Amino acid sequence: MAHLQKIFLFFLLFTLILFSQESFRKEIHVPDILGYKTLKCDFHMHTVFSDGSVWPDIRVEEAWREGLDCIAITDHIEYQPHKDDIRRNNNRSYELALSVAEKFGIMLIRGTEITKSMPPGHFNAIFIKDANLLDTADFRVAFRLAREQGSFTVFNHPFWRDPDYPVVDGKVRWMKEHQELFDAGLFQGIEIVNETSYYPEAFRWALENNLTILGNSDVHIPVTMFWDYPAGEHRPVNLLFVTEKSPEGVKDALLSRRTVVYYEDMLFGKEEYLNAIFSKSVTVKKIGINGKNIFFEVSNNSSFDYKLSLKEKHPDFNIPDAFTLKKNSKVHITIRNKENKGTFPLETIFTVKNLHSAPEKTIDIKLVFE
Amino acid sequence: MAHLQKIFLFFLLFTLILFSQESFRKEIHVPDILGYKTLKCDFHMHTVFSDGSVWPDIRVEEAWREGLDCIAITDHIEYQPHKDDIRRNNNRSYELALSVAEKFGIMLIRGTEITKSMPPGHFNAIFIKDANLLDTADFRVAFRLAREQGSFTVFNHPFWRDPDYPVVDGKVRWMKEHQELFDAGLFQGIEIVNETSYYPEAFRWALENNLTILGNSDVHIPVTMFWDYPAGEHRPVNLLFVTEKSPEGVKDALLSRRTVVYYEDMLFGKEEYLNAIFSKSVTVKKIGINGKNIFFEVSNNSSFDYKLSLKEKHPDFNIPDAFTLKKNSKVHITIRNKENKGTFPLETIFTVKNLHSAPEKTIDIKLVFE
Amino acid sequence: MAHLQKIFLFFLLFTLILFSQESFRKEIHVPDILGYKTLKCDFHMHTVFSDGSVWPDIRVEEAWREGLDCIAITDHIEYQPHKDDIRRNNNRSYELALSVAEKFGIMLIRGTEITKSMPPGHFNAIFIKDANLLDTADFRVAFRLAREQGSFTVFNHPFWRDPDYPVVDGKVRWMKEHQELFDAGLFQGIEIVNETSYYPEAFRWALENNLTILGNSDVHIPVTMFWDYPAGEHRPVNLLFVTEKSPEGVKDALLSRRTVVYYEDMLFGKEEYLNAIFSKSVTVKKIGINGKNIFFEVSNNSSFDYKLSLKEKHPDFNIPDAFTLKKNSKVHITIRNKENKGTFPLETIFTVKNLHSAPEKTIDIKLVFE
Amino acid sequence: MAHLQKIFLFFLLFTLILFSQESFRKEIHVPDILGYKTLKCDFHMHTVFSDGSVWPDIRVEEAWREGLDCIAITDHIEYQPHKDDIRRNNNRSYELALSVAEKFGIMLIRGTEITKSMPPGHFNAIFIKDANLLDTADFRVAFRLAREQGSFTVFNHPFWRDPDYPVVDGKVRWMKEHQELFDAGLFQGIEIVNETSYYPEAFRWALENNLTILGNSDVHIPVTMFWDYPAGEHRPVNLLFVTEKSPEGVKDALLSRRTVVYYEDMLFGKEEYLNAIFSKSVTVKKIGINGKNIFFEVSNNSSFDYKLSLKEKHPDFNIPDAFTLKKNSKVHITIRNKENKGTFPLETIFTVKNLHSAPEKTIDIKLVFE
Repeated sequence: MAHLQKIFLFFLLFTLILFSQESFRKEIHVPDILGYKTLKCDFHMHTVFSDGSVWPDIRVEEAWREGLDCIAITDHIEYQPHKDDIRRNNNRSYELALSVAEKFGIMLIRGTEITKSMPPGHFNAIFIKDANLLDTADFRVAFRLAREQGSFTVFNHPFWRDPDYPVVDGKVRWMKEHQELFDAGLFQGIEIVNETSYYPEAFRWALENNLTILGNSDVHIPVTMFWDYPAGEHRPVNLLFVTEKSPEGVKDALLSRRTVVYYEDMLFGKEEYLNAIFSKSVTVKKIGINGKNIFFEVSNNSSFDYKLSLKEKHPDFNIPDAFTLKKNSKVHITIRNKENKGTFPLETIFTVKNLHSAPEKTIDIKLVFE
Repeated sequence: MAHLQKIFLFFLLFTLILFSQESFRKEIHVPDILGYKTLKCDFHMHTVFSDGSVWPDIRVEEAWREGLDCIAITDHIEYQPHKDDIRRNNNRSYELALSVAEKFGIMLIRGTEITKSMPPGHFNAIFIKDANLLDTADFRVAFRLAREQGSFTVFNHPFWRDPDYPVVDGKVRWMKEHQELFDAGLFQGIEIVNETSYYPEAFRWALENNLTILGNSDVHIPVTMFWDYPAGEHRPVNLLFVTEKSPEGVKDALLSRRTVVYYEDMLFGKEEYLNAIFSKSVTVKKIGINGKNIFFEVSNNSSFDYKLSLKEKHPDFNIPDAFTLKKNSKVHITIRNKENKGTFPLETIFTVKNLHSAPEKTIDIKLVFE
Repeated sequence: MAHLQKIFLFFLLFTLILFSQESFRKEIHVPDILGYKTLKCDFHMHTVFSDGSVWPDIRVEEAWREGLDCIAITDHIEYQPHKDDIRRNNNRSYELALSVAEKFGIMLIRGTEITKSMPPGHFNAIFIKDANLLDTADFRVAFRLAREQGSFTVFNHPFWRDPDYPVVDGKVRWMKEHQELFDAGLFQGIEIVNETSYYPEAFRWALENNLTILGNSDVHIPVTMFWDYPAGEHRPVNLLFVTEKSPEGVKDALLSRRTVVYYEDMLFGKEEYLNAIFSKSVTVKKIGINGKNIFFEVSNNSSFDYKLSLKEKHPDFNIPDAFTLKKNSKVHITIRNKENKGTFPLETIFTVKNLHSAPEKTIDIKLVFE
Repeated sequence: MAHLQKIFLFFLLFTLILFSQESFRKEIHVPDILGYKTLKCDFHMHTVFSDGSVWPDIRVEEAWREGLDCIAITDHIEYQPHKDDIRRNNNRSYELALSVAEKFGIMLIRGTEITKSMPPGHFNAIFIKDANLLDTADFRVAFRLAREQGSFTVFNHPFWRDPDYPVVDGKVRWMKEHQELFDAGLFQGIEIVNETSYYPEAFRWALENNLTILGNSDVHIPVTMFWDYPAGEHRPVNLLFVTEKSPEGVKDALLSRRTVVYYEDMLFGKEEYLNAIFSKSVTVKKIGINGKNIFFEVSNNSSFDYKLSLKEKHPDFNIPDAFTLKKNSKVHITIRNKENKGTFPLETIFTVKNLHSAPEKTIDIKLVFE
């Protein structure tokens, strides 16, 4: 016995040394805005405790490395392909991840995926207390039990191709069961982004029904096998604007729809949030003059590219039609005072082609050159 | 029931589509040599079925993506930190990996890690038939049972820091128990590389005792979280020179010590193998002349860098003292016929500083410029 | 004097050592096709001898490093912004590059840019004998003199924004001067790609008038400051299908319109060339079976990605709708024999969405799974 | 005439558009220290106006892109291999670079390289007024004229292999001519790093004689062809600690020896500067506790890696022996309070193996965990 303990001890020791030497975190640089603190969150992912291929510790360490602050592991209740090998317990992935979350300072929200065939399809319940209690065949019962536990409930990947999905005009419909659940206040959020897919139609539903928009990874294999981070790829991330960095703060932000979805090189969310992120990320500085040409450095301190397109030509100045503010970089801009009739400060309006306040709707921002 | 089956089916479908779209393999380019076919192999790794953090399928897909041909999963028999959640079965990681191995065309060798405290420490038994039968406290019994199953047995990470290891002059000794096992023919190989460590002393033991040298990953977390492949890092790999691509061919190469270890930017192995790899990877081509200067392109079609250092100056030619043949590249070389007294073909001898036939012993190769 | 020579000698020596140690070439992997050898060429670039910012030697070494076989330096005759510092001589960049071309085995074609305001705009004359003789105000004279020297003449960036260009419906027109030059046989080629721009309209003109299509860099600063090669960017490249690797072979391929333009991740050219490149780059290999699922590895040995989209669903097999064959990689494909009614070999037709035989026209290719 | 002006105008326009869209700056993140502002500088580089291969504008734009604040172009007076094509004028590269420096906000210091055979070898004179006046055969005269112009003079690459250099024991000596110049106060600085070489012996001379240490690129070809920035390589950079961002501030910092040399992954300089850079770059934050294990995030906000090695074991705590603080990252550290006897705050001393205050002398720093 003492002997076995020694082996265990030395494995433990080994693991500690290993991790403390090898694990690096790269921050996602995004400013705090409008008096809120900005958290980076992913509320949908799987482990071996349903159909995922990693132990729960990996989900936490991935999150820390990739600059996240808060995650929820949401293993399927109803889908348990590893049940011949793993004892069923829908709370277990949370429990196992918890000590690793404490190690890495990651906020861990308890969650699960209520996995019904369509309708109503798959929904995540997070901020619950006991996932095992939700293991019931009737989806109406499951949704009510989740609400009683305090769940924030999310309609997952609403346009996912399922042989059972009733397809109209090539698209999944918002069905009467969805309306019923929605009318009963049984879900509050909707994924407009899931894994590698973006659903503009879900974005439209969210805006019409005042649902919180979310973008989650739904990852099953290791994140680094799915997204090529060194090449600039990343999992979908929710930006949450919280009054305090706590589970309560996260839940409040979700209920108050203070979220922005970061997907590929795009941000989706309310214009005021997108505008605030842009404004706090970008600064303009004059660095030189040469005759009629005035030179500026435009800095972007965030982890997002901004693709700018000039709204309208200026009568007195030549202003670049289009340019990109690359993340963590400065771009060099030349403005030409054509006949020396223009006066500073020069206010310009650009469309940011990768910031979307609604499907097919981009935001405008102001850059002041002085 | 029919309902649940439909859910399972659509998950299955989903997974298939996903994997067929997303999974890419990058080959390790190394020539076949001396009439043998060259296989790339890793014979030491873990899953959730001992103290690893991935499901067995991940080990197979990683291997395929990273250009390997053959792997062995070697979960610990004696160390089972997940046993509260996972039913114990030392054969299970092999069985679960097998259908994925068929999917990816990866050769899967059944293995396990016999995990005793020192002496004798940890040993891998591969090519066995039933790992559960080796679950016995007495290491002598376990080794004999493994041999009866046809095991090729490997002394793992012999210099790993273990609180139990008797350390003499800061180093682990070859102990009488190792000698006993060796004399009884109970192990045939030794890791001179494990994970991120290289043990020159183990290389020395291997040469003195005619043990097969091996370099394995011993990976517990996803490979892509441990080695930064896009930055040029890679797990340790064994190059095996086989007469046929089959488990029998692999076992024969191991027993015949036809292995080379690929670790960081180094290769370790017999001079004849290293020389053959170099010679079949590198070609010299004259591309121009300008007075006394003659210009050559030296191509390296392998995935290994070769760091060359000229053995001795030539009386008639200026030859570069040192240069690197980068993997999958061509380097431009200028040779100066100082007084136009030199004649071609010009045979030159270079030391390859990262190819080692023994600890602190590099090999010499010949480049012919003509 | 002897002293100065010694200094020169030691600089020369230094430079030689430096370059032979530091200069690496990465090949563009593209197969030879249809009995021709494939050369990679860029026929439009500038140096300090007109408005470029590099000495001619840089143009040659860049070309070698980036896997090119043949280039033309085409400094402007009429535009000489450095003339206060550099003695005018329109042949000089060629002469200075020539010894470096011999050093690197790069084929150097003599060229110049006839730089008139629109009409007719800018044209490159390559394969000429003396660029200084073309320094004349009348474009008609210049074109005739070029032809007398054996010029292959190319209409450069025909849609480039020039304050002088007559714009109709937002586009530059094919003007009567162009028709006049074309009717007189005074130009044979047209750039459909220049620097970072692609002109579909020019591609249309080329097809209508049997002009040779070209894609050139028109680079003025160092190539590595303009295109981010490590991130996968590259200058535009012409693939030429030659009967022999010689200036004559290059000219013959140009006159016979045996060119394909490689721009970003696209290839533009005749369907037969694109099909041949694809077919010789791609191989399909069965690697496993699991019930109704059959698994294949599709290898792409070229430096081009191929983005495939299935033409039509198969009654008996599930075939992936879309996938990418990444350059120098293998992708894993699962094909499902739905009811076990399908028979092999299975012939499939895919559209390759990034190979264009005309503007907005992609090619179809066949993949055989067996 | 009007016609030519129009062509010029449209080129000018083109260039402006081009540059404003394509030119990005990546900062070198290094804190301001000890009340000084930190500037990043390179004081040694060449253009086509001596033996370089780029026009002067490239040197300025490279500097801006790579995060430099201040440069000096130092073309050789005595070595003019392009003189057949370029009119000799040793002030010309400065004059041509000046308007580009204004465009990019780069501080441009006038300089030149006095290029004599050994002794005394090559010296840079910067902060001069007219390089043409220094064109004289006698090095003593040239040095005195430079001083009269206000030169800060630097002994370049003192260990460079020159056929003329008198070599003793395989090394270049500090010769009587160097002593004579030094005694006369005719040079104040010395390169301890030049291009890809580091000279520890020059560092020793600098410390013995109170010379300012410098590390310069001495680049002749485009910087991006010599150093692979995307792979993490960079040219040598001088960090200067100035009281004001102006030429006077730069000169004052040089004369006061407030420099640190940034070479590969190393910093060379006074212990107080290195310590201040480290301390202002690094912060320690507790992120969790698990029994006896306490977890910390150590942030490094600078562009430099720091390779730490623990000075001595602690009786009460297990502290990692060695770890790297990667640039712009956070590393996860576990400290174990072995018997729960240790008390916080815990002060630890680490050697930083890549920060050198003298040849073979690394600095120690303190990390406080609390």
